Amino acid sequence: MVGKILIVDDVATNRIVMKVRLTAAGYTPVLAADGASCLKLAQTEAPDLILLELALPDMPGLRLLERLRAEPALLHVPIVICSPLPDAKARCAAFRAGADDFLQKPIDDQTLLARIRSFMRARDEVAGFAQHHDGIAMLGLAEAAAPFYQPGMIALITQRSETALKLRREMAPHLAERVIAITAEEAMSDGAGPGATPDVFVIESDFNGPGSGLRLMSDLRSRTHTRHAAFCVQSSVGAAIGAAVVFDLGAHDLVAPGIPAEELALRLSRLLARKRAADALRASVQDSLRLSVIDSLTGLHNRRYGMAQLAAIADISRRSGQEYAVMVVDLDRFKSVNDRWGHAAGDAVLIEVAARLNRNLREGDLLARIGGEEFLIALPETTLADARGIAERLCHAIEETPVRIGDMGSLRVTVSIGLATSADANLPCVKDALADLIGRADRALLYAKSAGRNQVTISRTAA
Amino acid sequence: MVGKILIVDDVATNRIVMKVRLTAAGYTPVLAADGASCLKLAQTEAPDLILLELALPDMPGLRLLERLRAEPALLHVPIVICSPLPDAKARCAAFRAGADDFLQKPIDDQTLLARIRSFMRARDEVAGFAQHHDGIAMLGLAEAAAPFYQPGMIALITQRSETALKLRREMAPHLAERVIAITAEEAMSDGAGPGATPDVFVIESDFNGPGSGLRLMSDLRSRTHTRHAAFCVQSSVGAAIGAAVVFDLGAHDLVAPGIPAEELALRLSRLLARKRAADALRASVQDSLRLSVIDSLTGLHNRRYGMAQLAAIADISRRSGQEYAVMVVDLDRFKSVNDRWGHAAGDAVLIEVAARLNRNLREGDLLARIGGEEFLIALPETTLADARGIAERLCHAIEETPVRIGDMGSLRVTVSIGLATSADANLPCVKDALADLIGRADRALLYAKSAGRNQVTISRTAA
Repeated sequence: MVGKILIVDDVATNRIVMKVRLTAAGYTPVLAADGASCLKLAQTEAPDLILLELALPDMPGLRLLERLRAEPALLHVPIVICSPLPDAKARCAAFRAGADDFLQKPIDDQTLLARIRSFMRARDEVAGFAQHHDGIAMLGLAEAAAPFYQPGMIALITQRSETALKLRREMAPHLAERVIAITAEEAMSDGAGPGATPDVFVIESDFNGPGSGLRLMSDLRSRTHTRHAAFCVQSSVGAAIGAAVVFDLGAHDLVAPGIPAEELALRLSRLLARKRAADALRASVQDSLRLSVIDSLTGLHNRRYGMAQLAAIADISRRSGQEYAVMVVDLDRFKSVNDRWGHAAGDAVLIEVAARLNRNLREGDLLARIGGEEFLIALPETTLADARGIAERLCHAIEETPVRIGDMGSLRVTVSIGLATSADANLPCVKDALADLIGRADRALLYAKSAGRNQVTISRTAA
Repeated sequence: MVGKILIVDDVATNRIVMKVRLTAAGYTPVLAADGASCLKLAQTEAPDLILLELALPDMPGLRLLERLRAEPALLHVPIVICSPLPDAKARCAAFRAGADDFLQKPIDDQTLLARIRSFMRARDEVAGFAQHHDGIAMLGLAEAAAPFYQPGMIALITQRSETALKLRREMAPHLAERVIAITAEEAMSDGAGPGATPDVFVIESDFNGPGSGLRLMSDLRSRTHTRHAAFCVQSSVGAAIGAAVVFDLGAHDLVAPGIPAEELALRLSRLLARKRAADALRASVQDSLRLSVIDSLTGLHNRRYGMAQLAAIADISRRSGQEYAVMVVDLDRFKSVNDRWGHAAGDAVLIEVAARLNRNLREGDLLARIGGEEFLIALPETTLADARGIAERLCHAIEETPVRIGDMGSLRVTVSIGLATSADANLPCVKDALADLIGRADRALLYAKSAGRNQVTISRTAA
């Protein structure tokens, strides 16, 4: 899907001309001649972007804008006002009502298309990861993950520091965020850490010679801490480098040098709101990623993660020639704990055993819960003798102290451990060697069980 | 972290000059004067990029390059050769050994920095999502998720079709991938669908007038299907628009018009390999996202997703004024199923009940497993009367047919349902109203249980 664009204009010629331009660029245009059909199509067609002429026959444009913004499904859809009005007050009113940009008719083709590309890229940047899910629900997750509100930070980078200070003073009445004036060097040194990273950068395009502002923006966009910031470029945009290139280089907004402070403040607020929505969605993705590799009961890594990391350890060992060991750990007679004391007691035992195993391993060792009462341990760069010592320590750490189960008292718990090391394996394929190793650890575990439990058994023969 | 760059050069002056340039740009340089220290530092310092002079005192540069590439931890670290050699054969040999780029000394400052920025951006684009995890393990997940090998597709977009056809013919002996010559219009029409999307685009920068190639690249990078493609721009790079801008616009490689076909083929192979690694990591992220919202036993949505989507439904209902209903469904006497027939039987019952609930709901209804034997259902735009009918249908669908539990026979199973609708709620805050609604459904469920189970109870009073 390239993008569906809703064109709202009461003049038929304008709609047709815009439709032709957008179709030629590969977009799917949807047309509305008045506010009522705009509201309806915005709901049914789920456009990716709305181009809106404010002068409509059936309702005031600003009222329509507010109603569009009030729709949950349209909350994050970019709305670009297209208007012949040069009036500064009208622009501010539009931004206040929720517009993302205000283009003055007649609109230059290349600039319009670059502007649209910029919005489309921003849409996919985060939402792309959520595309296989229901849009509403992922936004729900995002909103649940949204951190508490913090005032934003806006950084001004200008040729002369007076320009920035004047801008800051004039924007103050219109902006609740923190505004700082910094140098390019300060922007690029992230020694202050991510807590002090600006959310929005306003950069004079030629603050230090032609193109210096755009280079700085590209630079900040290649750095981990600032790559998700919003960028507003202030430029008169000469003939050499067009407005289109500024957007294609990654700017989120482009403003003229003489822009009134109030309009700039409103534009920056809108940029900040979009950046926050993207941050929340990103946080939700991060959260989901974390949850997908964690066993929710014990907090250990889960089977999926454990198996992937074991494969990585096997791969590294094959290349380095260093031996590694694998253990399969199983709680003894766990079913009877559940049957006699209930699931809550069983859960308490699993949590405590997981914690004890974890405490008795080294950093870099792998511990994962791979089944109901089964744990996988991998010890990189470890000989059989060392692994055996560790396994016996684990058995002892579990047996030594009974596990408290709430106010029901304590339970004596033991584990059986099957141990195997990579030294015995002679299979050329990593995958086969790994399967063989786990198989040997599993068989050693069965032997430990049949030999009376609460013990370590070592697999000594290669398959 | 901006980026750690390993500089490998046997001439002290070269190292110092490069160190000063990179430090000024905010990077952290690490210096090596020979192959042995390069290998060591590459392991211990985990650089983000390596700048490598091939002429070293202690080992042949190509041998060093191969050894770096053989290290699992360095598999995806960009290696840029810096060499005074203009020799075409040397370049090809370097690419064959795993180089990502080959810059000829003396190296233009702006081009070098833009090249580095381009690699840094690519690194963060996908890996940024995995940054809170152990690097090795996420790569492990990525490799596990990697789809079966398919030959790649490379699309050539040139001013004259003969140029593309000649290039394709000449690259054929050096490239196993599919190469197609297409027009800009074909590249932009994604009617062919994602299966036919090229992995790499080679674009003549001025194929249709100055800057047309760069605009096309920006356009393709703003489209969902092509945004993750690799882009190689072919340009003589005039004075108007520098090589730096080409990279900053998102190109992954920049080659001269007269580049030998073999070198281009090798460069494209390397681009493709990097693109595949990013695709695999992206697939692993997608996979993790999916798993994080799914209950692995029943395949239904899990509690986390269910609660987030319920909040979204509540929000939409508040804005639209449309009533919605919530049910809490609980399996009757489920503990005794587990106790008498074992966990496998309990799991079979949960899976079958989940499937029956799912079959008896409408599209757009929410169904999630929110506890061991507890399910949450939300019905958007549904009145109490309709919801009650649906709840009774669900009860009936569960009771009607006994559930088969493997070869152990069949079990009669019933559920109790607590039902509440948003019409009764009068709390102004969505969050409070939602908590109240779930609370009422929960209390109604308790009432259904105490009244004999296998029935629907409706909460009729507001809290």
